[in-house]
Amino acid sequence: MKQVVLRAYPKGAPSVGDFAVETAAIPKPAAGEVLLKTYWLSLDPLIRFSLDERRLTGRAQVRPGEVLYGGAVSRVEASNAEDFAIGDWVEGRTGWREFAAIDPTAVPLRKIDAVAAPPSSALGLLGMPGQTAHACMIEIGRVKAGETVVISAAAGAVGTIAGQIGKLLGAKVVGIAGGAAKCRAVEALGFDVCVDYKADDYAEQLAAACAGGIDVYVENVGGAVTQAVLPLLKYQARMPVCGFIAYYGLGLEGPGPDRLPGFMRTIMSRGLEVRGFGGAMVAGQKALDDLARWHGEGKIKLTETVVEGLDEAPAAFAGIFSGNANVGKLVVRVAAD
Amino acid sequence: MKQVVLRAYPKGAPSVGDFAVETAAIPKPAAGEVLLKTYWLSLDPLIRFSLDERRLTGRAQVRPGEVLYGGAVSRVEASNAEDFAIGDWVEGRTGWREFAAIDPTAVPLRKIDAVAAPPSSALGLLGMPGQTAHACMIEIGRVKAGETVVISAAAGAVGTIAGQIGKLLGAKVVGIAGGAAKCRAVEALGFDVCVDYKADDYAEQLAAACAGGIDVYVENVGGAVTQAVLPLLKYQARMPVCGFIAYYGLGLEGPGPDRLPGFMRTIMSRGLEVRGFGGAMVAGQKALDDLARWHGEGKIKLTETVVEGLDEAPAAFAGIFSGNANVGKLVVRVAAD
Repeated sequence: MKQVVLRAYPKGAPSVGDFAVETAAIPKPAAGEVLLKTYWLSLDPLIRFSLDERRLTGRAQVRPGEVLYGGAVSRVEASNAEDFAIGDWVEGRTGWREFAAIDPTAVPLRKIDAVAAPPSSALGLLGMPGQTAHACMIEIGRVKAGETVVISAAAGAVGTIAGQIGKLLGAKVVGIAGGAAKCRAVEALGFDVCVDYKADDYAEQLAAACAGGIDVYVENVGGAVTQAVLPLLKYQARMPVCGFIAYYGLGLEGPGPDRLPGFMRTIMSRGLEVRGFGGAMVAGQKALDDLARWHGEGKIKLTETVVEGLDEAPAAFAGIFSGNANVGKLVVRVAAD
Repeated sequence: MKQVVLRAYPKGAPSVGDFAVETAAIPKPAAGEVLLKTYWLSLDPLIRFSLDERRLTGRAQVRPGEVLYGGAVSRVEASNAEDFAIGDWVEGRTGWREFAAIDPTAVPLRKIDAVAAPPSSALGLLGMPGQTAHACMIEIGRVKAGETVVISAAAGAVGTIAGQIGKLLGAKVVGIAGGAAKCRAVEALGFDVCVDYKADDYAEQLAAACAGGIDVYVENVGGAVTQAVLPLLKYQARMPVCGFIAYYGLGLEGPGPDRLPGFMRTIMSRGLEVRGFGGAMVAGQKALDDLARWHGEGKIKLTETVVEGLDEAPAAFAGIFSGNANVGKLVVRVAAD
């Protein structure tokens, strides 16, 4: 079977050469373990955090030579674990490999209904990105009808869902994405308008789209994209921080100037509320239930970009950080049947 | 009469040479105006924002040659305004001068009770700093009994009050201040402990004082003081931003490295809630009523540093930014009788 290992810690944005596709023997499940066949792999900017010499999060750290760690949807091929049977579909952090022997008491596996929705949706709308978007718009953002909401990385896994939730809530939803094609795809999802941050007059376009000021800014990006948003925030605006891809390669400090003073001034002088999305804040099952219902009612579309085969996973992962990759959730089809 | 004018916009931290004490004729109140005699002048880091070529806030900007703008407590000496009588005590932004002719429809004047509490308290405990401390601890910080609260600039006007509110609420209160003398003064107000940020082992002392983690961090400072706090914040900690004196001279950008990436990562990975205190967030009269009651019951002490005479105001104001000035609210006694 194939698996993807880390060759060297990325410097800044990951590149294809930081990874290697290897072959390995299909593992045999020990007592208590299940043998999983990977069908869908999640490509997610958060994986970047695990690929650093410094321990940046509480999550697992991947060292050179080790298999990459990340979410996947799999089917049980053999089971020595009590609660799992052959044919069950599961989602869990089982890694970038075609087969995995997993102890479900060590690596949590969530059983999914592969009939009600396509199995890959457990990595997007009906998984962590959906829960993140739900938390950012509803629990943290408290978006209300008539408000103006701006969503950065609008074409991304979280952004595409957040914008559709915003329209369901009756808000005016302005997306920010890179390039005309992505912007048109975002508008096709029902966003009122999408502004291209690569345009020369990005800041002016954004100001024109938000003429009355911004009530809620869903932060997924950071960097120059965000600098243009800050002056448009209304007094006591809310800013759910759901990601900040521009900073993922930077560790705790980036090249100067130091932009923290301006951010703190904005927070104070505008009475801004900035709140991070942390995993435990997820409205858990409630969010998944809402999203599944909205999807079933045709109110929220599944949006995925599918990459074919594990060989292509490193390039597709690197593409997230160069801003030229996916619309919607980016997944790798590891097995076709 | 004397008045203080801006000589030149300060570069970074203000210094005495940026100001000049002048003499001027005592003004005559026109129709609708009151003549005020200044008794107490408020020295407040926020004044720094008005002393910049760039327009940094919605507040008045002071240009070279103009009288400094800031809060004061005065007595009405003559009145052509319907609602004000000779002998009334008022608080308002009437400037750094011994007398002022003011139109109360243009510059709001708040009548104060000079019998219930010393008039200068209208600039501190029973004024904006008290309202700020109340909002930061109660409305924004939502401090609960048993929680650990850290307060930077603990010896300052807001910090001294915030810490006492924290003890009233049943929290463990840890102050941060500069120098042993200030720390002892802070502890004398009832703080559980005060850590000296000038100590070589400041970060270690702070970590030891907050062994179980920090629930609420009241930000008054920014800069290196705050960098030591961030790693100690609990999951979903709250961070009311009430000031950030380290940044007041910096405009929107400071010298690198850029610390915004690390701050954003902390916000996201810890589900941090950062919320700015903006003026309109003040719990207004409710805060003043609470504070006056607590003061009357002996539960909160008035803490002031008094500077004698308008001539000394520039040096005392500059001292705020070099961190070697006041404990409690810093006021200038402009008139003694």
